[in-house]
Amino acid sequence: MNNKLLVLGTIAYDAIETPFGKTGKILGGCATYIGLAASHFKTQCGLLSIIGSDFETQHLDLLKSKKLDLEGVEQLEGEKTFFWSGKYHNDLNTRTTIDTQLNVLTKFKPKVPEDFKDASVVLLGNLDPNLQLEVLSQMTQKPDLVVMDTMNFWIESYREKLDELIAKVDVISINDEEARQITQKHSLVEAAKELHAMGPQYVVIKKGEHGALLFNGDDIFCAPGLPLEEVFDPTGAGDSFIGGFTAYLVQRGKITFDDMKTAVIVGSALASFTVQEFGTKALEKMTFVQLAQRIQAFKSLTEFEIEIT
Amino acid sequence: MNNKLLVLGTIAYDAIETPFGKTGKILGGCATYIGLAASHFKTQCGLLSIIGSDFETQHLDLLKSKKLDLEGVEQLEGEKTFFWSGKYHNDLNTRTTIDTQLNVLTKFKPKVPEDFKDASVVLLGNLDPNLQLEVLSQMTQKPDLVVMDTMNFWIESYREKLDELIAKVDVISINDEEARQITQKHSLVEAAKELHAMGPQYVVIKKGEHGALLFNGDDIFCAPGLPLEEVFDPTGAGDSFIGGFTAYLVQRGKITFDDMKTAVIVGSALASFTVQEFGTKALEKMTFVQLAQRIQAFKSLTEFEIEIT
Repeated sequence: MNNKLLVLGTIAYDAIETPFGKTGKILGGCATYIGLAASHFKTQCGLLSIIGSDFETQHLDLLKSKKLDLEGVEQLEGEKTFFWSGKYHNDLNTRTTIDTQLNVLTKFKPKVPEDFKDASVVLLGNLDPNLQLEVLSQMTQKPDLVVMDTMNFWIESYREKLDELIAKVDVISINDEEARQITQKHSLVEAAKELHAMGPQYVVIKKGEHGALLFNGDDIFCAPGLPLEEVFDPTGAGDSFIGGFTAYLVQRGKITFDDMKTAVIVGSALASFTVQEFGTKALEKMTFVQLAQRIQAFKSLTEFEIEIT
Repeated sequence: MNNKLLVLGTIAYDAIETPFGKTGKILGGCATYIGLAASHFKTQCGLLSIIGSDFETQHLDLLKSKKLDLEGVEQLEGEKTFFWSGKYHNDLNTRTTIDTQLNVLTKFKPKVPEDFKDASVVLLGNLDPNLQLEVLSQMTQKPDLVVMDTMNFWIESYREKLDELIAKVDVISINDEEARQITQKHSLVEAAKELHAMGPQYVVIKKGEHGALLFNGDDIFCAPGLPLEEVFDPTGAGDSFIGGFTAYLVQRGKITFDDMKTAVIVGSALASFTVQEFGTKALEKMTFVQLAQRIQAFKSLTEFEIEIT
């Protein structure tokens, strides 16, 4: 296993409104969150994405400063970067999309850089399943681990392609509603079984503030949601999660169920930072010491002694 | 601390419909579930409740066979036992009450038996706060631990009395929606702070399939929800939880935060049995060995190694 991590996803501008405030145009996109999360681990992480000529130098510099390899990021002259704006409701669990401007995304033809065609780990962020499949087909060596995310839009409208993709990945990481939507099973245990049967050896079901479940056949691991006094902006939580999860495994160089458990906690810890500020702010400035402390907090949160006699 | 546990609550007949089936009139009521859960621990457990002359001998015999002290259970001649019927919707998280016949409950004047006036632990099940307060006032010795439950109806209509009660208990155990309803805080961390400020040193917030949180000031413990393939009937889950939680503490004879953590797991394990069959069935036949195994399952579910370097 080499330490190369190839990440497919969007680099975007977002405008976000939550009950706590409103941003102007800020840096967003799943590849951005994934990359920033991954940058805290020892990996050679390359992003595969597309941006427009409006993409600001300061944001390119930020990504470069985090040692992210941008050879796979195409910049299209005269085109604009993918833009999304949305508003979170009072409970922060639901959101309404105000505006989506696909812009460069409509022209995105991912081309895996030579240096990443033998990456041991590929992380397919939430995007058109056709593009996710295309990236896999360009790998010259079968990766040791392929991780994927998706969302309701692709489940509804691209189901056949999505199923083709799911059959080819090792880990699928989706939220509880998406798991129910794909499998038509309400019980998450049953949903995980269906998802296993579709291909992936590992199924991760994210439950927002309630944590996450990791399934490997009959083995189940449950990561708690860290009870936070304030969730400021949930944008990017799932991407931070899967970025931290995957990059931890690359750094570790091993992919057992026990490693996956720690990876789920690492991802949860990163997501818990992300939601405490708008956009990528918390993820950018978080230190490794802070991350280690938070992982310890997750451990303390669930540890107990069995003394029942 | 003596091993006496006084339980105030209803003994009832229920008729339950879930997506998986429908019962006739079956044994129910919070004191019933609490007592059956408590019967798995070494305590002297006395129930304080009221039943009608229609209450069947087989059900009295069942409670007696579990070594529950029924001196505090009044049987009113010519009156009928409290009856509730309800229907759970497809996701099992919501239910509609079809019928409530208070019957004997309207005449309930709890009288704590002499032998239980010095009980070290009092568990006030979900009932009119006036009755819960009345029971406390009859204790000749201040209990070491008073635990209470309540529900939306009392929060809406008996708020003043409820606040008076909350100020007098050590542990309040309610679900997430009730916590939000009482405190008007969405964040459960903030809700727990408000509840602490109202009196109780310990706050337990039950989150159904997502587990439970235990708060003691800034210390937080998170019990996972055991992922179950099938939840058959959620009735009595919260009562089984609090019954197991409290009876474990009585048996243990110590009330530290660490003991409380294990108690939350014990309660969660009991609740996980309850929901797997209609009514009290699972709770009746469960063995201590099965309980110990399930507690171990809760431990395995959340244990992980920190190896992040």
